[in-house]
Amino acid sequence: MSNVDRIWTAALVVIGDEILSGRTHDRNIAQIASWLQVQGIRLAEVRVVADLEDAIIGAVDTLRAQHDYLFTTGGIGPTHDDITVDAVAKALGVSVIVHPEARAILEDYYSTRGGLNEGRLRMARAPAGADLIPNPMSGAPGLKIGNVYLMAGVPAITAGMLEGLTGTLEGGLPLISETIGCWVAESEVADLLGCTERAHEGCQIGSYPFFREGRVGANFVVRSTRRDALDACIAVLITGLKALGKDCTPGGI
Amino acid sequence: MSNVDRIWTAALVVIGDEILSGRTHDRNIAQIASWLQVQGIRLAEVRVVADLEDAIIGAVDTLRAQHDYLFTTGGIGPTHDDITVDAVAKALGVSVIVHPEARAILEDYYSTRGGLNEGRLRMARAPAGADLIPNPMSGAPGLKIGNVYLMAGVPAITAGMLEGLTGTLEGGLPLISETIGCWVAESEVADLLGCTERAHEGCQIGSYPFFREGRVGANFVVRSTRRDALDACIAVLITGLKALGKDCTPGGI
Repeated sequence: MSNVDRIWTAALVVIGDEILSGRTHDRNIAQIASWLQVQGIRLAEVRVVADLEDAIIGAVDTLRAQHDYLFTTGGIGPTHDDITVDAVAKALGVSVIVHPEARAILEDYYSTRGGLNEGRLRMARAPAGADLIPNPMSGAPGLKIGNVYLMAGVPAITAGMLEGLTGTLEGGLPLISETIGCWVAESEVADLLGCTERAHEGCQIGSYPFFREGRVGANFVVRSTRRDALDACIAVLITGLKALGKDCTPGGI
Repeated sequence: MSNVDRIWTAALVVIGDEILSGRTHDRNIAQIASWLQVQGIRLAEVRVVADLEDAIIGAVDTLRAQHDYLFTTGGIGPTHDDITVDAVAKALGVSVIVHPEARAILEDYYSTRGGLNEGRLRMARAPAGADLIPNPMSGAPGLKIGNVYLMAGVPAITAGMLEGLTGTLEGGLPLISETIGCWVAESEVADLLGCTERAHEGCQIGSYPFFREGRVGANFVVRSTRRDALDACIAVLITGLKALGKDCTPGGI
């Protein structure tokens, strides 16, 4: 396998009782997944765990060994339920320090906002050896140690951190995709989808059914790292659907 | 520990490349989490895995042993990428059969919709020994085998299946919660939150910051299985915030 064909993978640990209680709809999974694709890295697994040290340690320990990169979201704020830094440090077998650069950033950020206090200083804590990930929105930085990236729970803050990381992670060829939508029950065309995928090496076809306005339809997403293979697969799929009397909507419905 | 104090837990495996690619925002995590809370069952972990047999088997095998219940969403449709039934059967060491009752349901459902075909018949396949979970929306049933519940990927279909399961799972006392919102930086009140939680056994306080209209605020969510403990904790928290000159909004902002 040449280096360009190597598939780089990442995992994500979403840390937060608010997701597991159903109170908050997670938005970081889709955000980080989309961003990783552009970096040529595939999100291979996500785990959502509670604000419990053992749960975080277990997930971090397993996933950082299995993947090129591990991201976490949540639990790096100033309150008592923010325990990600401690858990990750334990998982990595390092101590927790007050990061001088992070402390300076927070001192500056809070100089016009009431000053540093004990809670705010918590956000300068880091696993020993970590580098900072700048947070253009609200001061408190993310952290990078080894292949582990600690991001914020608030999606807008994580978005700012990701922007700064763009282009800095080694990846492979980005996975590209094309979608075609069709007002058809996917069960009518299951055979066509399976045969078309098998006939196009390096392409995967996903079928995503929906119900809208009382009608059934589906979007078919073809993914590949190769543009030529992708285009050929899409063309065969459209021809096959037309042969069954179904019109397609490029880009999806 | 009396039986009433026992904490029942569930895990969820979300199966689908479309979530890991960022194309689709998951809505089943929050939906199932909220439903479980009402049943007195705590969602303790979620894993999102790709449409790969080994990934599904690994997650199902681990989580069904660790929790009272395991739910899966996705991968029970008619197309080639729907492999949940096969993977769960392998994880449980049972064969895959065509479930006669499921087949009858599908024959009836598709009698006015073009009849059964090979793809549609895939949706009658089940791990041997499974019971059906009725699907009031689109025929193809969910499946229950042991403590494993196989649900649809389309959130509206899973909603219908959950409705039918309401009240049928043994659980403990439902976790209840109260939220108060406050236009305050959580870092200003981190101490208050930690102290208040420690002073109220059986209560957890979660702090969920946000940025809106250019201002920082946070919602504080107190969770407990006991109404009296919850009320006492909320009262102390409101008093503490008022002492710091902060007004609270019951129900959250």
